[in-house]
Amino acid sequence: MSGVSRAGFALAVHGGAGGARGGDPAWEKAAREGLTGALAAGGAVLEAGGAALDAVVAAVTRLEDCPVFNAGRGSVLNADGEIDMDAALMEGAARRAGAVAGLTRVANPVRAAEAVLRDGRHVLLAGPGAERFALAAGVPAAEPGSLVTNARRAQWQRARGRAPRAGGTVGAVARDAEGHHAAATSTGGILGKRPGRVSDSAQIGSGTWADDATCAISATGDGDLFIRAAFASRVDALLRYAGAPLAESCARALADVQQLGGSGGCIAIARGGSAVVLFLTESMPRGVLVEGKEMEVSSG
Amino acid sequence: MSGVSRAGFALAVHGGAGGARGGDPAWEKAAREGLTGALAAGGAVLEAGGAALDAVVAAVTRLEDCPVFNAGRGSVLNADGEIDMDAALMEGAARRAGAVAGLTRVANPVRAAEAVLRDGRHVLLAGPGAERFALAAGVPAAEPGSLVTNARRAQWQRARGRAPRAGGTVGAVARDAEGHHAAATSTGGILGKRPGRVSDSAQIGSGTWADDATCAISATGDGDLFIRAAFASRVDALLRYAGAPLAESCARALADVQQLGGSGGCIAIARGGSAVVLFLTESMPRGVLVEGKEMEVSSG
Repeated sequence: MSGVSRAGFALAVHGGAGGARGGDPAWEKAAREGLTGALAAGGAVLEAGGAALDAVVAAVTRLEDCPVFNAGRGSVLNADGEIDMDAALMEGAARRAGAVAGLTRVANPVRAAEAVLRDGRHVLLAGPGAERFALAAGVPAAEPGSLVTNARRAQWQRARGRAPRAGGTVGAVARDAEGHHAAATSTGGILGKRPGRVSDSAQIGSGTWADDATCAISATGDGDLFIRAAFASRVDALLRYAGAPLAESCARALADVQQLGGSGGCIAIARGGSAVVLFLTESMPRGVLVEGKEMEVSSG
Repeated sequence: MSGVSRAGFALAVHGGAGGARGGDPAWEKAAREGLTGALAAGGAVLEAGGAALDAVVAAVTRLEDCPVFNAGRGSVLNADGEIDMDAALMEGAARRAGAVAGLTRVANPVRAAEAVLRDGRHVLLAGPGAERFALAAGVPAAEPGSLVTNARRAQWQRARGRAPRAGGTVGAVARDAEGHHAAATSTGGILGKRPGRVSDSAQIGSGTWADDATCAISATGDGDLFIRAAFASRVDALLRYAGAPLAESCARALADVQQLGGSGGCIAIARGGSAVVLFLTESMPRGVLVEGKEMEVSSG
């Protein structure tokens, strides 16, 4: 657990709860660069007085571009050996939300989620209809194959026939100078997943949530169990109705996921000020930037 | 509001919150027959000592088969003039859940949701991957075009270019003799919706939820706002953390949807016993069956 501030803007990012990756300096370096770049991009928005919504989109865009994380470029491959990406975005002032699932040729799924949010008609679009909407809204297309990295192709070859594995989802939560909250999450999902599987990341109230009255939260882990635990809205409810502090709310909601047999972590920012980073797994690459303080980044 | 029991099994069904349909006796008769058939099918399961999960699947299957409701046969058409169906199912003992979105040629989407639940690997499958999984799991395919009714085709022709409209979603909630809860919801979504739009019905914690510790709930209405309100998990949270009774919990969660600019209704069954039927719209066809009592059905 880490973080803390009582006023001013704050931003936290994560690169997915998962197993220890000690001993791979190239991976560690790339992860740290990705997290630092994401905090810098989101922080620049907040520093300039920008909105939390724009800050989390900027941060997650950078994490999607970083090939070591499982989102955007570097997404894991599904059972068909294809990528199949999800993202969601929510802001806490009017609780507007946008989400996409099953994208195959959009470089930055969080930008597609943003287009859904700004359109305002629906919340979640999936599959070919989602891709068609995103491209028509001007979200840039990726060259076929450009999002699949050699490392992910090799990982998929090794994993064929084994149990699906999660890990590497990215996310950001922010509070801006006006006290507004926003959260964004983006993921390639689970290695070897069934095609068409929609993650908790894409489902508002499961892996992603923001309300100015309570918190902004982005989760990572065994996503199907986060859905069955209604994880993110459980954190909101503990703050709202049980009067629990943010760190305790996150811990209790994670304990509920654990009771269902899952594991994972989350980042969250509450109304008053504190940022919480919490995970039950061996590692969760993460970073926190609080106004007037040094950036904190950890790749482990 | 209606219902009530302190023990024994209970079952409630709905045919979607919407505008008044008074003056169409053929529609009223078909709706009443559909609701009565659904209560009879689910009630037979419960009467025989069967599980709440099986009862809600049986009830919703009957409602999907009834062409006057917006689910299964009789689903509304999307912006492309095609059907695009969603369903979800959850049981409250182990909080297992299954859901599907974007089905185009499965006669009973709730059966596809049941296949996802029983498979146990993921919670929500969408689009072509969902259909492929359902058909491989043995869920019967529908003849192309057989799910599109003449009434829905005519309605779509009239509505082209106008604002999207919801209505006619179906659902069921049950408590069985052992005190286990289950909920199921199925919908064709919104007339004229963007292709690929995933409804609140398909999202666990939004339109569908079950936990033996709290309640089973199925919602209907302006689905995108039910997602942004995390409606079903909000009802759970009010019971769990605020100590509110079920009727008050449903009313407060619906008021939150209303605050976001939406409307709708829900059916719910709580731990202790009472069944709640609540809607803010002009009508919501509905039925309640409580062990040892007469069936109650209303098409208005």
